[in-house]
Amino acid sequence: MINKLTLIGVGLIGGSLVRALRHAQWVKEVVGVGRHVANLELAKGLGVIDDYKTDPAEAVAGADVVVLAVPLGAMKNIMQEIAPHLSEKTILTDVGSAKGSVVADAQAVFAGRIEDFVPGHPIAGTEKSGVEASFAELFQQRRVILTPHETTSATALGVVREMWQVCGAEVIEMSVAHHDEVLAATSHLPHMLAYALVDTLARMEDRRDIFDYAASGFRDFTRIASSDPQMWHDITMANQSALVEVMKRFRTDLEQMITAIEKGDSQFVKQTFERAKKARDAFCDGK
Amino acid sequence: MINKLTLIGVGLIGGSLVRALRHAQWVKEVVGVGRHVANLELAKGLGVIDDYKTDPAEAVAGADVVVLAVPLGAMKNIMQEIAPHLSEKTILTDVGSAKGSVVADAQAVFAGRIEDFVPGHPIAGTEKSGVEASFAELFQQRRVILTPHETTSATALGVVREMWQVCGAEVIEMSVAHHDEVLAATSHLPHMLAYALVDTLARMEDRRDIFDYAASGFRDFTRIASSDPQMWHDITMANQSALVEVMKRFRTDLEQMITAIEKGDSQFVKQTFERAKKARDAFCDGK
Repeated sequence: MINKLTLIGVGLIGGSLVRALRHAQWVKEVVGVGRHVANLELAKGLGVIDDYKTDPAEAVAGADVVVLAVPLGAMKNIMQEIAPHLSEKTILTDVGSAKGSVVADAQAVFAGRIEDFVPGHPIAGTEKSGVEASFAELFQQRRVILTPHETTSATALGVVREMWQVCGAEVIEMSVAHHDEVLAATSHLPHMLAYALVDTLARMEDRRDIFDYAASGFRDFTRIASSDPQMWHDITMANQSALVEVMKRFRTDLEQMITAIEKGDSQFVKQTFERAKKARDAFCDGK
Repeated sequence: MINKLTLIGVGLIGGSLVRALRHAQWVKEVVGVGRHVANLELAKGLGVIDDYKTDPAEAVAGADVVVLAVPLGAMKNIMQEIAPHLSEKTILTDVGSAKGSVVADAQAVFAGRIEDFVPGHPIAGTEKSGVEASFAELFQQRRVILTPHETTSATALGVVREMWQVCGAEVIEMSVAHHDEVLAATSHLPHMLAYALVDTLARMEDRRDIFDYAASGFRDFTRIASSDPQMWHDITMANQSALVEVMKRFRTDLEQMITAIEKGDSQFVKQTFERAKKARDAFCDGK
């Protein structure tokens, strides 16, 4: 249990985290920080945070743990704002969906105390956003990836690990580069495809008919295209290099499929579908 | 109400259709036809069909309505098998996901009585297949597209329309070409992307990690890649030209997105995501 947690960015992920921590009685006081007072008031009204500050410097004073839950594009600025005001004991972590950019930001800003920063990423979320969509159970039986450096303090790592475990999550460690490659493939690429597909269709002449006759498979397939555009812009830019690599790999495979369909290459098409079905059934366990 | 319906192909769609028709007491007797006796026995045991035949010629004798619910690649053969044995009164329809190929098959085989054939396509289904997955409510509040020709008999059209309406579906008419374009965009293209994505990832070196860390969004996005490969092979080949056209359109848009991400063109990326979110939220109504 800790005394004070400062949550910078009170949205779906941050809100769900502190709801779970309060429920587990792991934290005494949660102070929220954000740009919009109305959202902070809402969070306070919902009982997600005890109090709030609009000045991050003021909010981090005396905090045991500071959680950075802002969009990736806002990380560096917020780090710069809080860095001079951190207590010596404070442990820092984040929930960003790409880790390379956050670690680079942290190394630039927290140079003197980078050992207290534990980069983290909970593999959870919905296409909804905002503290009003947050719920304490979001991380139950979900995975949280931590990407500590060899110089990361064992104490800091232990506290952040415990923080997620009390939320019901399974905590895993991997390297920054591996995290960013895996997430580019399983999360960032599918989002690109969903956004690109919906946008392609929306710009077609008969778009009204197209969406009118879409079946439930289409709803499932494109659900992630309803995700927050600003957040996904930031993730895209933060994980640019790993994402572009896997997008190009996909483009090559798509080219081959188009050629096979054009040529009427039944065998190629059927084998591709069979391999894919087998892989998905095996890994996703029929869900 | 009709006396006898012959269902050729007793799977998810055909099975759900006759379940609904029996529930609505629209049909007295349902005879199933298939290649596998075990499946027909299962269907009979489940009460989906009253009886079955393995010889299609025998099964269609005296039928009021014959429903072709076989994969698209099997349509022409089955049409040729039944054509010489059809009663004069028999109305023919199908449930194929592409209409151009089925209409071409029907024109070639049923030349003398093409006015009795009403091409149809229920916009419903799940990634599951087989009669054991069928249920009577599958078509409730779903759309069924009929693509009659100007020479189609008004009686036949009326009966097929009523058949779907008693299942709770909304029946719509459109041209064969328009159907195939719309379905290529909303159904066939998403399936190609889902199959291609899962296959791309499954062939990556760290595929185990990749699937292990996939979140729920990935499951939703790739669910359609668990669909029956043979069926989707047939749809792909049957709707080749409309599908290739929309795949190329998508490929061009994907190329532009890759270039924009590589160049760090924030504005392009954010505007694309915003347009897509707006379109999906508007057309899919938050579901």
